[in-house]
Amino acid sequence: MPGIWNITAGKPEKMNLLSELHITPKSDAIRKMGEAPIPLGKDDIRLEIIDGKTYIRFQLVRDEKIFGLGLNFKTVEQRGRIMRLHVDHYTGKDDGRNHAPVPFFVSSRGYGALINSARYIDVWVGSSVRKDSKDQSPLRDRTTDKNWRSDQYSDNLEFLVPAEGVEILLFAGPTMLDAVRRFNLFNGGGVLPPRWGLGFWQRVPTPFSADDVRNEVAEFEKRDFPLTVIGLEPGWMSRAYPCNYEWDAIRFPQPETFVRELSDKHIKTNAWFNPYVSPEGTLFNQIEPYTGSHKVWGGIIPDFTMPQARQIYMNHFSKHLLDKGVSGFKMDENDGIDSWLWPDVATFPSGNAAEKLRQLYGSIMQDMTMQTFRQRNQRSYGLVRAGNAGTTSFPYVIYNDAYNHQEFITALINSSFIGVLWTPEVRASKTSEEWLRRMQTVCFSPLAMLNAWSDGTKPWSFPDVADQVNEISKLRMRLIPYLYTAFADYAFEGIPPFRAMNLEEGFHATGIIEEGLLDATENPYAMAVRKEIKNQYMAGKDLLIAPLFAGEKERIVVLPQGKWYDFYTGVFVGESEVITVAPGLDKIPVFVRDGGIVPLWPVMTKITGTDKYPLEVRHYGNKPAVYELYDDDGQTFDYEKGDFSRILLTVEVDKKGQKKGKVTIPKNGKVWSFSACNFRFMTP
Amino acid sequence: MPGIWNITAGKPEKMNLLSELHITPKSDAIRKMGEAPIPLGKDDIRLEIIDGKTYIRFQLVRDEKIFGLGLNFKTVEQRGRIMRLHVDHYTGKDDGRNHAPVPFFVSSRGYGALINSARYIDVWVGSSVRKDSKDQSPLRDRTTDKNWRSDQYSDNLEFLVPAEGVEILLFAGPTMLDAVRRFNLFNGGGVLPPRWGLGFWQRVPTPFSADDVRNEVAEFEKRDFPLTVIGLEPGWMSRAYPCNYEWDAIRFPQPETFVRELSDKHIKTNAWFNPYVSPEGTLFNQIEPYTGSHKVWGGIIPDFTMPQARQIYMNHFSKHLLDKGVSGFKMDENDGIDSWLWPDVATFPSGNAAEKLRQLYGSIMQDMTMQTFRQRNQRSYGLVRAGNAGTTSFPYVIYNDAYNHQEFITALINSSFIGVLWTPEVRASKTSEEWLRRMQTVCFSPLAMLNAWSDGTKPWSFPDVADQVNEISKLRMRLIPYLYTAFADYAFEGIPPFRAMNLEEGFHATGIIEEGLLDATENPYAMAVRKEIKNQYMAGKDLLIAPLFAGEKERIVVLPQGKWYDFYTGVFVGESEVITVAPGLDKIPVFVRDGGIVPLWPVMTKITGTDKYPLEVRHYGNKPAVYELYDDDGQTFDYEKGDFSRILLTVEVDKKGQKKGKVTIPKNGKVWSFSACNFRFMTP
Repeated sequence: MPGIWNITAGKPEKMNLLSELHITPKSDAIRKMGEAPIPLGKDDIRLEIIDGKTYIRFQLVRDEKIFGLGLNFKTVEQRGRIMRLHVDHYTGKDDGRNHAPVPFFVSSRGYGALINSARYIDVWVGSSVRKDSKDQSPLRDRTTDKNWRSDQYSDNLEFLVPAEGVEILLFAGPTMLDAVRRFNLFNGGGVLPPRWGLGFWQRVPTPFSADDVRNEVAEFEKRDFPLTVIGLEPGWMSRAYPCNYEWDAIRFPQPETFVRELSDKHIKTNAWFNPYVSPEGTLFNQIEPYTGSHKVWGGIIPDFTMPQARQIYMNHFSKHLLDKGVSGFKMDENDGIDSWLWPDVATFPSGNAAEKLRQLYGSIMQDMTMQTFRQRNQRSYGLVRAGNAGTTSFPYVIYNDAYNHQEFITALINSSFIGVLWTPEVRASKTSEEWLRRMQTVCFSPLAMLNAWSDGTKPWSFPDVADQVNEISKLRMRLIPYLYTAFADYAFEGIPPFRAMNLEEGFHATGIIEEGLLDATENPYAMAVRKEIKNQYMAGKDLLIAPLFAGEKERIVVLPQGKWYDFYTGVFVGESEVITVAPGLDKIPVFVRDGGIVPLWPVMTKITGTDKYPLEVRHYGNKPAVYELYDDDGQTFDYEKGDFSRILLTVEVDKKGQKKGKVTIPKNGKVWSFSACNFRFMTP
Repeated sequence: MPGIWNITAGKPEKMNLLSELHITPKSDAIRKMGEAPIPLGKDDIRLEIIDGKTYIRFQLVRDEKIFGLGLNFKTVEQRGRIMRLHVDHYTGKDDGRNHAPVPFFVSSRGYGALINSARYIDVWVGSSVRKDSKDQSPLRDRTTDKNWRSDQYSDNLEFLVPAEGVEILLFAGPTMLDAVRRFNLFNGGGVLPPRWGLGFWQRVPTPFSADDVRNEVAEFEKRDFPLTVIGLEPGWMSRAYPCNYEWDAIRFPQPETFVRELSDKHIKTNAWFNPYVSPEGTLFNQIEPYTGSHKVWGGIIPDFTMPQARQIYMNHFSKHLLDKGVSGFKMDENDGIDSWLWPDVATFPSGNAAEKLRQLYGSIMQDMTMQTFRQRNQRSYGLVRAGNAGTTSFPYVIYNDAYNHQEFITALINSSFIGVLWTPEVRASKTSEEWLRRMQTVCFSPLAMLNAWSDGTKPWSFPDVADQVNEISKLRMRLIPYLYTAFADYAFEGIPPFRAMNLEEGFHATGIIEEGLLDATENPYAMAVRKEIKNQYMAGKDLLIAPLFAGEKERIVVLPQGKWYDFYTGVFVGESEVITVAPGLDKIPVFVRDGGIVPLWPVMTKITGTDKYPLEVRHYGNKPAVYELYDDDGQTFDYEKGDFSRILLTVEVDKKGQKKGKVTIPKNGKVWSFSACNFRFMTP
């Protein structure tokens, strides 16, 4: 495929990050991107096999930036860091242990690379200096030279893969977004969630019964809050931690009726589970021969690298969940927190190393469940705690137990480099300010969810901001046509729907390096501190989201090239500059690019999936514009066979500055989700 | 040797933790300990080679406790934890990365084991549960059963060594102290420092010149503060970070004279260095062929696994330092902070893996420098940032850049399980209370040092506690005969001079397990919290040290079996019980066992090394007692050839309770360090 190259060192292991997944590269879309050279010379990549391991070295140049390398929570630019890419819970450090330690990086030189190994991979991202390097920091004496620096310039990006060979995949630019798009398309393109998946989700407390859920839903209706998905936590099962994946007969006496009742109200049901199988259930005896040497919480551990295990598991799930109408899953505890997962000394009946199972487990669980929905021609959307390379097309959004709001946004930004999705879910808050700020950002994320499994919170839990929460969650519902198109661009073009500013053309902001102050304990090497722009991001084609966090009254926003307009008012805010905004508590700052078009549904709290609604098509700024609104049935895979439409929304501007909107539905084109397009020119 | 067994799995690598070190087991002392069975059955250790790695499993039993496994800073008991033993700076977590991640553990069942591999070793210390385990937690449903626990009982201690074979050494008890003693004796016995090493050390600021040091010494003399060693920081060299190990001609125009002047004042000179060689010096060209592929701070990295590299390095050191009278070293930055060390992708001319060099580097540097002093029949004592198994007999105390006072004490406790020494050095403090509390503990540690490299602090920096600091540092000087004997017991018997309470017979305190409270973010699995007794320790045979930390007005002390007495007053404080003490700021609580004997020198601020002083021999409690005071020349290795004395200090108690002291000098026995023994019966 043009713009994608495969380099092989030694004898790569048969099992890699992609080998166990059912993904088909979007070859046509890749071909459509055309030829592109890789900006690397022959000496820019060096490979060696030493001591049973593969050594990989990429040459870095001055000012080159490296992004990606896992779902990091603190840092966006990775140059200068050392990591061990290892599937794990995030425990407060960007050390490579996280929910999606994808060994894919994208370079500001305009290329990307995947180290396709299911081993724990060590990486030194421009942190090590080689003797033979041509570009090195000048030599200084620390005692007498004030310009001595602990961080030496490094022109190396070095990987150590503990296997006697590895496949490396290179993805061409010329822009970083192009490299990311090629990576995503190679992985099957992005997921296109069912339309309901983009609504508002509420997860209920663990011990909730069917009646408790009914009351909860009634409360949402009474208070006029959006609700498209109810998430059931472990209490739906009769045994959990470990799990038997069978409905509890007391709390849920008639699961099928219960799920249908919700469905009749246009509310989908999502069910929690983790992979550890309880002896107290019918799955146990069947799956036992295909489980590993260890247990987690008393549950046995399926060897999902074996087709038999997957088949048995999914048969059970089909019978108990999919047949009953459940729309998707929340797949917990496949990441680890290190303890709550098998140790690396575990053995599995497939003979595959525990290490590889760990790196792949979340990916395979995503694949396995997705296939089961796909067989029913039914799209799903859900949550997962672990992923890796190759999961881009799977209908899962990563979440975790951490809860730092800023870090949640940094993770959202980083997810866009590595082909995964992330939700900054809301659970609880100390203040109503924090509550609202969190609600504002989660509504501009891949999954707008309140997860009340433990706290029992509701969107209206903080009465003094209940109206604002209601408003932002309704805005989320209104934005579905825009977001759905953004996801279609993810699926068809590989463009991340929520993405880092660094992937945006014309965004040149770099971090601020502050000189370090010597402190014998806190900073004995007087290390410099790097402050990055990691609190703003793009949503869809033209929206720039600049959230505020509790305690902030104002913030700066770095605007990429061009003119930008306020989303709410259409007022011009700046052009290629850094602005300061103080929007008050009610609003999350959102800006639209000149010529941006945002189609909005009417205010509603449910999605029927079949009704058509009039669209408000907002245009911002004064540029002529074309927007390709995506539409399909919103729930099946028929779009993959071509059953979808791209409706052209065009705004023309005449010489007098008069604007005119036009809707172009392609010949024989179908329309599923809207009844009319009413243009609204936001900028006078 | 009796009580020590060697188990081999697969084909162990030629290079292991001990293979590169020049150590001779103290076979006679081990034999003297006699035969002892290992309390393990055939099925209690299982070994397998899978996927190129060695899997090791030790069977654990209920209530068994595991100690050791590296220089941990937060925890003493290790059961329940997961670590990757990896030489590194301590960065705030007990995750196996630390300055001495010794793969040696000691079990409360009464044995110890060393996994003798120079690889990074993963270990699951009773944290993983096997399907085939006979002893497991009962199955519970998390949703409905309040007794569900996230921490499941595990009866496994599992190691994963990434090599196709490994040697395991088992050390018999019956007590944990016996197992530790066998381990220490196998490693050559503990170091016996020169007597001056047990005095008071002051490290001066980096840019200090010879004249600055002279002024500093004069100030110590003027203020009547003890001083036995001056530590020079990087400024003694003309190039540092990277280093040339040559005196700076401006700051130190006449190094030999300078060192001799200090020596004439009975002050030894210790010199800082790190292993990275500057091109701006005479060592560079010689060592260059024996250096690795990478650089640190612009310095090249000697491959110390090559004898040539060691020889060249030590020739340079002999010429520039030992010949000039320098008494020892502070060997910095051989641990890493991960960044400031070669990456694992580095290659070395010996062909040895970077990983192994990392695990061994500190050990080999200790060995190499020690050998050089040994060739001169001159004992040394100094500091190092990294060690591992086998360094017990080397004259180095580990230190680091962290500074949490409580953690420093936990590290001191943990050092006693793994055959290394640790200093809770003092650098700076926020308050005079903290300053004094830190001074009190460092004076009851292997190395009583103020490290002012960056802060320029002096013992009298906090005037309101200057008198108390003076007093405690003088007490340190007085205690030298007692501490020197404790170190002799380390050297001859393998008994750690400063040691965990858990190594003390009759100490039965266990941690308190507090039930965990569910919190969706802070504690989503409602994990239990374990509170350990990790703030008291033994010094020498009979002293129990119970430090207070800044902010504390009182504390509890867990007394081992028997009666205990206040060190300062001789008053009875308790018997086999938990007491509460509130000693005020001036004193660090110190207690003496019934029948404890503590020999003290007179108050002095210098040690001549040749003068003899009258000893005050304190006796505590009412038990008859025998104390074997150790004596030798205090500075050479002649003691290894038998040139030492054990002087019996005996206290007899007659029927009326009258005490009588007796001194027995063995026939032909020499006395070096004291002129008389004056008994003082502290307890009436």
